[in-house]
Amino acid sequence: MSRSPHHDGSALYVPEQEPALGDTVDVFVRSPADADVRQVHVRTTGDGEPRFAEAVVDRVDDGEVWWRAPVQVRNPVSNYRFLLTGRHGQRWLNAAGPVDHDVPDHGDFKLVSHAPPPAWARDAVVYQIFPDRFARSAEAKGRALPDWAIPCDWDTPVVGRGPETPHQFYGGDLDGITERLDHLDRLGVNTVYLTPIFPARSNHRYDAASFDTVDPLLGGDAALARLADAVHARGWRLLGDITSNHTGDAHRWFTAAASDVRAAERELYYFDDATGCYESWNGVTSLPKLNWGSDELRRRFATAPDSVLRRWLRAPYGLDGWRVDVANMTGRRGADAYTHEVAALLRAVVAETRADGLLMAEHGHDHTGDLDRNGWHGTMNYVGFTDPLWSWLRQGEQSLPNFLGTPGGVRSRDAGSVLATLHAYRSLVSWRAYTHSWQLLGSHDSARIRTVVGDAARQEVAVGLLATMPGIPMIFAGDELGLTGANGEGSRTPMPWHRPETWDEGTFAAYRALLALRRNEPALRHGGLRWVHHDPDSLVFLRESPAGAVLVLARRAAAAAVRLTGLGPGDNVYGGAAALRPGRDGTVTLPGDGPTLQIWRLS
Amino acid sequence: MSRSPHHDGSALYVPEQEPALGDTVDVFVRSPADADVRQVHVRTTGDGEPRFAEAVVDRVDDGEVWWRAPVQVRNPVSNYRFLLTGRHGQRWLNAAGPVDHDVPDHGDFKLVSHAPPPAWARDAVVYQIFPDRFARSAEAKGRALPDWAIPCDWDTPVVGRGPETPHQFYGGDLDGITERLDHLDRLGVNTVYLTPIFPARSNHRYDAASFDTVDPLLGGDAALARLADAVHARGWRLLGDITSNHTGDAHRWFTAAASDVRAAERELYYFDDATGCYESWNGVTSLPKLNWGSDELRRRFATAPDSVLRRWLRAPYGLDGWRVDVANMTGRRGADAYTHEVAALLRAVVAETRADGLLMAEHGHDHTGDLDRNGWHGTMNYVGFTDPLWSWLRQGEQSLPNFLGTPGGVRSRDAGSVLATLHAYRSLVSWRAYTHSWQLLGSHDSARIRTVVGDAARQEVAVGLLATMPGIPMIFAGDELGLTGANGEGSRTPMPWHRPETWDEGTFAAYRALLALRRNEPALRHGGLRWVHHDPDSLVFLRESPAGAVLVLARRAAAAAVRLTGLGPGDNVYGGAAALRPGRDGTVTLPGDGPTLQIWRLS
Repeated sequence: MSRSPHHDGSALYVPEQEPALGDTVDVFVRSPADADVRQVHVRTTGDGEPRFAEAVVDRVDDGEVWWRAPVQVRNPVSNYRFLLTGRHGQRWLNAAGPVDHDVPDHGDFKLVSHAPPPAWARDAVVYQIFPDRFARSAEAKGRALPDWAIPCDWDTPVVGRGPETPHQFYGGDLDGITERLDHLDRLGVNTVYLTPIFPARSNHRYDAASFDTVDPLLGGDAALARLADAVHARGWRLLGDITSNHTGDAHRWFTAAASDVRAAERELYYFDDATGCYESWNGVTSLPKLNWGSDELRRRFATAPDSVLRRWLRAPYGLDGWRVDVANMTGRRGADAYTHEVAALLRAVVAETRADGLLMAEHGHDHTGDLDRNGWHGTMNYVGFTDPLWSWLRQGEQSLPNFLGTPGGVRSRDAGSVLATLHAYRSLVSWRAYTHSWQLLGSHDSARIRTVVGDAARQEVAVGLLATMPGIPMIFAGDELGLTGANGEGSRTPMPWHRPETWDEGTFAAYRALLALRRNEPALRHGGLRWVHHDPDSLVFLRESPAGAVLVLARRAAAAAVRLTGLGPGDNVYGGAAALRPGRDGTVTLPGDGPTLQIWRLS
Repeated sequence: MSRSPHHDGSALYVPEQEPALGDTVDVFVRSPADADVRQVHVRTTGDGEPRFAEAVVDRVDDGEVWWRAPVQVRNPVSNYRFLLTGRHGQRWLNAAGPVDHDVPDHGDFKLVSHAPPPAWARDAVVYQIFPDRFARSAEAKGRALPDWAIPCDWDTPVVGRGPETPHQFYGGDLDGITERLDHLDRLGVNTVYLTPIFPARSNHRYDAASFDTVDPLLGGDAALARLADAVHARGWRLLGDITSNHTGDAHRWFTAAASDVRAAERELYYFDDATGCYESWNGVTSLPKLNWGSDELRRRFATAPDSVLRRWLRAPYGLDGWRVDVANMTGRRGADAYTHEVAALLRAVVAETRADGLLMAEHGHDHTGDLDRNGWHGTMNYVGFTDPLWSWLRQGEQSLPNFLGTPGGVRSRDAGSVLATLHAYRSLVSWRAYTHSWQLLGSHDSARIRTVVGDAARQEVAVGLLATMPGIPMIFAGDELGLTGANGEGSRTPMPWHRPETWDEGTFAAYRALLALRRNEPALRHGGLRWVHHDPDSLVFLRESPAGAVLVLARRAAAAAVRLTGLGPGDNVYGGAAALRPGRDGTVTLPGDGPTLQIWRLS
């Protein structure tokens, strides 16, 4: 097997990870001895015109030539690619890989000179909690329930689709979470992300009735302060969830706006004054859409000293950032295209309020045009991670809805098709945006991974990829116990604290071991990514950093053994396969059994 | 040969060619009977979320199923793609063609609701004239020459690269052009595009010393008025060339700015007040770069009642629009990214001044991010037409510089690679922007096509593609006579009016016949584009419109005969091959000789 010339945005290839506008930084291309590369140029387009600079050989290492070239960071986002000239012609090397025809610049590598995301983010492992379903404190039982709530026991089956779906009320609260942090510690996460905690008229609380207070049903402001203290005492981070696209129709902004055409709040929404109708999220009238053309909205939401965004980032709550709900829809409506402005505004306000704040976009769709500006630090990578992985690992008879709305539900695809999709999305964003996006196997908005893949063995493969691929792993609470769920609402299952006999201990152990490995292997957190093999049932890749390298084999089913050359020896650190010991011909053989997830640390 | 499901932005598939924001329009997909398509959905993302609508069968025609689906024009540019479901799985159909893995939206089809380009543009055939080298009127000889000029006889060899290159002065003038319009008429063009005509200190005049007057060396304002009258009298159009990225250093804006740090003109440029240095085009200090952050620049150049842009669009000159020099660089510098703002501003001012004005961008680089906004109507499509065609038809020993600056010069590529590049660029812009861009075989900034391809036979193939592919053909004056030139400056050859024995009459006849065919075949001007075959030496495609269809075969060399099915009979209308008469098995055979260009009108 011969490897291709390679470059990505990791430190092996871009030692300066935080370039400033105006800097000139070195970038490196590695080229295997047999890759027919005799000359390398780097191409930039800083003022709209192509410019070429010739690379020089920096060193030859283990038969590989490392070429070095300077790139001037002329623009906030500076794109570059390489021209590889060999005996047999010329190829481009861009973020999609080597290509032998001329291509537009959208797949170029990107150096981003905007302020980097907070340092803690790249080592984060996020645990997503849907508060109504996580845990109840002793206080939970005594609370009076609102009119919309259908009270449920912790054992009541969750109704995934029906009129009662948003109203089933289990009564989890914030102190319940605080009491269960040891579970998160055992699992090995370090960042808690809460879906909305503001008062609302539903169990999911995406229909905020206020942004000014924590829902008393969750314990109120004081409970949030207690949870924040407990999370921070462990050295962890706490993230909130904010709806920038809409409020609930019980929000006082909306009730004021709806009741008086001259109200200051009128402009916060999209009212048709002739009919009294207003724009709402997907036509759901309880979720009126916010109009970001309004200066008053920008003030209340973001820029005012006590704005929604700022307030909860400060003591005594000290949220470490926000996940922004349907960021993809925020500011988009007809000819209104405020999305990038809003993202930049929210980012600036977060940074101003706390320098280490994180701003993550929910984007259940193609996010590539919305990242790498001065807005969202990253996105929930459903399209470039979740969906392709699902389609590779899918197993089961029933049709499962695709969370992107694609008719036909979750499809089954071979590794080649899956890799093509991973490359297509990854190649359009910077390495920084890719590695600071959340990779996830599912969320409160999707089926659970266990239901998608059908069994523990394939779930282990999925978690293995989550823990070993670039990006910030995000785990939806309960996945680690093997919980099931066939759609987003149906997956919002109460955590079975009182039924430990139902826990899938093997799955929990796999999550725990894989996250520990990620914690201990710098290459898994910060390394580059090189794909070295795929067949329909197998994916094999390298994560490499200046501090070491690991090889990962993921198989959804048994397949032929894989012979690889050009790798040193390596000890197996996960999965139980034999150590890699190159034979006389320099090859190593990866075993053919599956489903399996194997990891070797290379020496 | 089986054909793929197909859609493009032409009238067969999008009957409403000028949709308005808010409209819902029908779009059609054609699917051959054997294409395994049982269901079709159209997918849109109008508010950032994917939505699917099911298509219905509109009709079955000659074994092909025509599916119809509604698309709401929710945004100024509304993207859409199709999901094709068959027995053997699902595929997407986007502007790059059918694809069986999930892909981002950048390749989606696009409906553009901005005001359409002027109606005349889509039937335009543009003839580019470099005034110093086209023709001299009787008055030319009497003019006093400026200090920078090196006077040349019409027969003096052009120096393509050297200190005298910009100063060789041949003395062509506007009345010279007026006197030669019969030549353009014989050729069959209908739009005259003049490179700059303002006073300057070079023969190319891209270093404008003023925008207020026509260079007296060209005959002054009155000569322009005479030329405009003569052009318009023939029912043709006249386009100017404006430098929005820079002026010359002799421009009074610049001399005022350079001599007084408090001058109103200082802000029009990028001065470093500490050093007195200023930004210039590619570091050439005689071309100081304009700063579009300046409101005063926007006023003088565009918005003022007597602005540069407006003045020449009005009587008695009545230019029908502008070609904008280095539009790709205009407004781009470091963190300054005014390009799209400037394009929108210039477009608005042109439209305000004359409703049928055209605004074309020069873009010697990836233009795909700059079109389909409310700015440039189209671009000079060097990357998506000229460069790939050159690399397919290149023939010759000497190394020829690539006008995009790519090291290694013009490469030779097979048709597969060429098609991949055509698709890559075309699929990122709307059908409207693609068909309103200028397709060209060369210009005053490149080698001449004859030198690139080496002989008349291959030039005929090139011109055949120019005349039969979508887009506005642009011809650099002299190409039609078989003139040669190895680089941009070297190609600025005086027209050999006085040496008719040197004209390549065969090449002229080919241009003339092919342009006449384009004029007479609506399918060639307004039809869709379906590729039906390629091998390394051959390209075969259909142009189809409600008014008829043609089949085009382009070969750079002899190759195997091509058998095609699913085509009706057709008469040969160019190239001399036999008529197409399907055999009993329904196939037709295209002859294997080459180089050749053959066109059949299908019945």
